[in-house]
Amino acid sequence: MKPKDLIRKLKQGDVRAVARLLTLIENEDKAVESILKNIWPLTGNSYIIGITGPPGAGKSTLVDLLAKTAIENNLKIGILAVDPTSPFSGGAVLGDRLRMNSAQKSGIFIRSVASRGHLGGLTATTRFMINGLEMLGNDITLVETVGAGQGDVEIVKVADTTIVVEVPGLGDEVQAQKAGILEIGDILLVNKGDRPGADRLAKELKMMLSLGEHKEWTPPIITTTATKELGIEELWNQINNHKKYLENKEIDEIRLSKIKYDLENQLSQYLFTRKMIQIGENEIQNMAEKIFNREIDPFTAIEEMIKQ
Amino acid sequence: MKPKDLIRKLKQGDVRAVARLLTLIENEDKAVESILKNIWPLTGNSYIIGITGPPGAGKSTLVDLLAKTAIENNLKIGILAVDPTSPFSGGAVLGDRLRMNSAQKSGIFIRSVASRGHLGGLTATTRFMINGLEMLGNDITLVETVGAGQGDVEIVKVADTTIVVEVPGLGDEVQAQKAGILEIGDILLVNKGDRPGADRLAKELKMMLSLGEHKEWTPPIITTTATKELGIEELWNQINNHKKYLENKEIDEIRLSKIKYDLENQLSQYLFTRKMIQIGENEIQNMAEKIFNREIDPFTAIEEMIKQ
Repeated sequence: MKPKDLIRKLKQGDVRAVARLLTLIENEDKAVESILKNIWPLTGNSYIIGITGPPGAGKSTLVDLLAKTAIENNLKIGILAVDPTSPFSGGAVLGDRLRMNSAQKSGIFIRSVASRGHLGGLTATTRFMINGLEMLGNDITLVETVGAGQGDVEIVKVADTTIVVEVPGLGDEVQAQKAGILEIGDILLVNKGDRPGADRLAKELKMMLSLGEHKEWTPPIITTTATKELGIEELWNQINNHKKYLENKEIDEIRLSKIKYDLENQLSQYLFTRKMIQIGENEIQNMAEKIFNREIDPFTAIEEMIKQ
Repeated sequence: MKPKDLIRKLKQGDVRAVARLLTLIENEDKAVESILKNIWPLTGNSYIIGITGPPGAGKSTLVDLLAKTAIENNLKIGILAVDPTSPFSGGAVLGDRLRMNSAQKSGIFIRSVASRGHLGGLTATTRFMINGLEMLGNDITLVETVGAGQGDVEIVKVADTTIVVEVPGLGDEVQAQKAGILEIGDILLVNKGDRPGADRLAKELKMMLSLGEHKEWTPPIITTTATKELGIEELWNQINNHKKYLENKEIDEIRLSKIKYDLENQLSQYLFTRKMIQIGENEIQNMAEKIFNREIDPFTAIEEMIKQ
């Protein structure tokens, strides 16, 4: 399909066209820029919910249940699952794509994408994919990041409401991680609530919250057992509470600061790519060899490359 | 202390001077560049071992035991613990610093550092800190990354030998993570070997390895119980095997490619910082607002900023 035709179909809300655009974004196709330029004024209209947490926390089941609840409330939903892909092979995790089948039949648009490790790329790519999904007119976009660490933090830059999922039984050192995670969660969720230690975990989270910096919005701590569909209504209510809070307060400011963050990342990537083309692969290799042999230090090397 | 005095003391291998330099690097002090320029020819002489894995896997205990073994083998050792710090508060995790006390008494230099989220910064910062530690004349630098995800992958860019620690009982979805982790590990380690499921985990890892791409170096799978000091000798032997393998083969090439990666990241950061100073904070804010209001798309915004 020509970009012109794709843009036309996107503006009609065509599902196949959206799927095609997401593939183009994933593959960093050259056509993406002109397509996104064209549809830009029509994007930005969905409420974005991020779900993050360690592997095995049951995020996928939670996403399925949230999607179901959204439909029961007559809301259109799009789902983006960011995969914990090997940084080297670049392949997506097949299991996740398969899991999505049943949901897809109910008219929800679901897409699994690989999380590549490009410089400042993941957040921007995710946001463009959300913009692509929005051409379907969805009210809510659910973004699930499978995996822990850096990706967890990145999702805050994209989501309006961030749900952090924890599960009992991951050991003491998890405390350290929780400290960071508490700060990114608008809603803290203890899943697998039927397991031993769930109550204690919820209490620990509550205590840590009380020790932390006082904020205007206090993240609620919810216990769910997704496999038995327990606690989902409470989760849904709390998402709506947070949405109302944002709408009364500062949602525009927060969204603006996220756009600024993306813009800076994209600018950084643009400048680097342009300079690399200018300097050439050989010169970078040459400088790296000099640094390795201790003939030059990295700072002087950069100064020399900038001058060129 | 003036940079000139600090450089002189660093060249004498003064411990306090090294501690001071590491603090300056952590704080991104302006003096860092000139200091590192001066000591650069004297750095790069330690063998770097990275230890990574999920929270609660017992990495800290393993690091302590490896340090003990190194000393028994008359090797000088430096340890750098990269903390899973909150990206927002920037504070280091206190527990880890406290834990280090006993080891510090035995003459090992240990430093916990915060892992800030700067653009392309973590790897470069870690490497500069390793270079700082090397002024003490250590034979081995152990780098422990606490936390999982992106950081795990980054450590490969720094370490000569990467040890990936797994523990039994983290659920099925961990499979997805393991797939990526297998590719970064030179040694795969199943810790908490006295727990149920340890044998099965080791077998699973072996099976996954056999399914993966065939490589010249096949990562050995070791089972340890760090709390009982079991399996540490085997781990030490395998580290030495991998070191010999690299020395016979390609260690220079691999180290060179890592330096190149760092150089590209630093160049990227330099270009971005310079452009930001040139454009000014107001203009970035202004553009972000226009994008938010859908008056301009991000690509056209970047084109306009580049022109300025």
